[in-house]
Amino acid sequence: MDEERLGALVDALIEGYDADGENFERPRLPARESIDQTLELIRRILFPGFYADEALPRTSRRFRVGTWLCHLFTDFARVVYRALQHAQPDSPAPALKVRARGMTEAFIAALPGLRRRLLHDARAAFDGDPAAHSVEEVILTYPGFHAITAHRIAHWLATAGVPYVPRAMTESAKTRTGIDIHPGARIGDRFFIDHGTGVVIGETTEIGDDVKIYQGVTLGALSVHRKMAGAKRHPTLEDGVVIYAGATVLGGETVIGARSVIGGNVWLTESVPADTMVFERPANLKYRPLGEGA
Amino acid sequence: MDEERLGALVDALIEGYDADGENFERPRLPARESIDQTLELIRRILFPGFYADEALPRTSRRFRVGTWLCHLFTDFARVVYRALQHAQPDSPAPALKVRARGMTEAFIAALPGLRRRLLHDARAAFDGDPAAHSVEEVILTYPGFHAITAHRIAHWLATAGVPYVPRAMTESAKTRTGIDIHPGARIGDRFFIDHGTGVVIGETTEIGDDVKIYQGVTLGALSVHRKMAGAKRHPTLEDGVVIYAGATVLGGETVIGARSVIGGNVWLTESVPADTMVFERPANLKYRPLGEGA
Amino acid sequence: MDEERLGALVDALIEGYDADGENFERPRLPARESIDQTLELIRRILFPGFYADEALPRTSRRFRVGTWLCHLFTDFARVVYRALQHAQPDSPAPALKVRARGMTEAFIAALPGLRRRLLHDARAAFDGDPAAHSVEEVILTYPGFHAITAHRIAHWLATAGVPYVPRAMTESAKTRTGIDIHPGARIGDRFFIDHGTGVVIGETTEIGDDVKIYQGVTLGALSVHRKMAGAKRHPTLEDGVVIYAGATVLGGETVIGARSVIGGNVWLTESVPADTMVFERPANLKYRPLGEGA
Repeated sequence: MDEERLGALVDALIEGYDADGENFERPRLPARESIDQTLELIRRILFPGFYADEALPRTSRRFRVGTWLCHLFTDFARVVYRALQHAQPDSPAPALKVRARGMTEAFIAALPGLRRRLLHDARAAFDGDPAAHSVEEVILTYPGFHAITAHRIAHWLATAGVPYVPRAMTESAKTRTGIDIHPGARIGDRFFIDHGTGVVIGETTEIGDDVKIYQGVTLGALSVHRKMAGAKRHPTLEDGVVIYAGATVLGGETVIGARSVIGGNVWLTESVPADTMVFERPANLKYRPLGEGA
Repeated sequence: MDEERLGALVDALIEGYDADGENFERPRLPARESIDQTLELIRRILFPGFYADEALPRTSRRFRVGTWLCHLFTDFARVVYRALQHAQPDSPAPALKVRARGMTEAFIAALPGLRRRLLHDARAAFDGDPAAHSVEEVILTYPGFHAITAHRIAHWLATAGVPYVPRAMTESAKTRTGIDIHPGARIGDRFFIDHGTGVVIGETTEIGDDVKIYQGVTLGALSVHRKMAGAKRHPTLEDGVVIYAGATVLGGETVIGARSVIGGNVWLTESVPADTMVFERPANLKYRPLGEGA
Repeated sequence: MDEERLGALVDALIEGYDADGENFERPRLPARESIDQTLELIRRILFPGFYADEALPRTSRRFRVGTWLCHLFTDFARVVYRALQHAQPDSPAPALKVRARGMTEAFIAALPGLRRRLLHDARAAFDGDPAAHSVEEVILTYPGFHAITAHRIAHWLATAGVPYVPRAMTESAKTRTGIDIHPGARIGDRFFIDHGTGVVIGETTEIGDDVKIYQGVTLGALSVHRKMAGAKRHPTLEDGVVIYAGATVLGGETVIGARSVIGGNVWLTESVPADTMVFERPANLKYRPLGEGA
């Protein structure tokens, strides 16, 4: 490719950037890469030695943890600042910087509490899965635990008013786990998702304590229009509910009562009282012998 | 492990390589790693600053973009060359090199057009999802957007006659998103996949403009045999069709008419006229109160 | 953030680490990172040049392969040692080290056999998928092949008595593929998973030769309690069975007879004789014309 041809191709691309209203000097959202790295750092701080291969000897751990927190503070305040700047392009930069630093410091102060809640989630997973050998194994390998970790972090940030970053974090977790939890969803203690691929939990879902969900479960909306933004459009699950694989529960007014069990593949758009099991009647299956040539 | 034992293990492995007909000097397909890196570079060029944390200041952007295109040209021409060489091991290397460079240059020239179509996809996603806050958020975080980006790139390359690379790119996108679109599928403008995990779109699918698909939808074949390769075995969706989560539409002669809506979990192997809603009658659910010991 | 504040935050985190019973000097499971890297190295050794961009010229390949095996031996023996130490914290370290090295050496000796079985899997995938162009393409890009590679490695290790590592490996493969196969599952020759997202295969599943499974298939347990650990709670599939997308087969006493075919979305909790096709009767679908305002 000669220089003239290259120059023409470059100009065509840049013309496109401009035509589409991109202005590369205005505030921009933080790149996916920065957010992924921050989420990894938070996970390392919450459970040191689990995700990265590193020791934390008793004599030096105060310095190690201090260094991690400094890094997190610097990197994360920058990410939050860029997200704020994008959401409020007319606010003065110094005020946004102060706000970003304040949000980041409050988040770091919340880490011990987040860790405690996550350990309860890990123990619930261990109790609920006969194939698990230890709580450590859950923390290290369970995709459901990875997803609830990202969710609890993202939900804290969303509640604190950090724009964009929470959603990017849960999408990052979804990339790894196939579990899609909107940061807005409110989820109680000791939550366990088993296997998890294909799980979708919508923005206005409310989930009580000790709830257990299997792969392919959707907690979704009945219909989807932009004008519905903000309204309660996803279901409520009370304490102790269990939802088996592939079931779908839809609608903002749908409430699954405490301790009820929804069977696999059930499609529900109505409320269920407490202490009730819902399942499909034996499916209308047909059997046909296969001939030689089948 | 002593040296003799190690030597024996090495020889056993190499014997296996040879017994299985591998010849490490003949043309080989490009490694997964090279294709993944190329796809990342293309995405960075299409949407600079979104996926990698990099600025593109107005004064220097012509040089930055020029450098990216040079890299892409070199790396990608090499990948295409290896793929061509593998598909046509008897063609003379210089002719294949010329062809690979020509294909790569044509692809680079197509990038501004691809970018424009992708921005339309991103806007359709923003319009269709009440939880979205901006088009930028869609580009940065939506798995459906990631998947359609890889698909439009791969489909262009497949149509241009590049072997193997398109399929490797869509598999790479599937790894990240859980969305599996065969490069051969023909997809119209403003296509939106929400959530997306578990979506499968087969090789001979045809999709019109303004189509919307949810997680777990399969557009598949009725039966699968090698001899059917090439035949139209996946369905056709006309403009404005919506297919809700978990629905399955099968067969090369199945046509979903314009603006029709297929409900969640529906299993379809027949055509549907335009402007029709298809859903399952209320499922045959059974309710049972749970006792104390449940 | 000033130093005093930082110090307080560090102390709060460390207090949490201690309160939750973490002792950072006791034996710990190997980090996820080490296991992922080891799995990548094994895959490179099994299929050199496929996953990483590297040549293996005939004159020097004996040295290259030897170097890889040395690395694998060192790294993997360390991973296995840590896993053994975690499972048996009271065993003397030297004895565990000897055992870890023995297990690792036996595993390396098993690689040529694993490779042969995996090539049979790859050929079965090529034969079963009309969209495949070559066996090499399957090895390079098919998620089902990635998953069965990790499974055959993990199953070998689990059978040899290596704790924890096998499960971490299959979770790593699930992250990439959306396919969740427990290392305990026993799977015959020429196994093919197409597309694969959402597939779940439980710990005590038994699968014969020449079985074919599509995306979203669950081979699961009827109910899940810790006390059931160890019992046969997942189904048995005899030789030549085919299970189409989204079907669910549950229960340790459920046996699908040889060459039987289970249709898409079927929900089965009972055995099926050999040479039988099972499918749902045409679904009870409802059609409604859509008005202007729909």
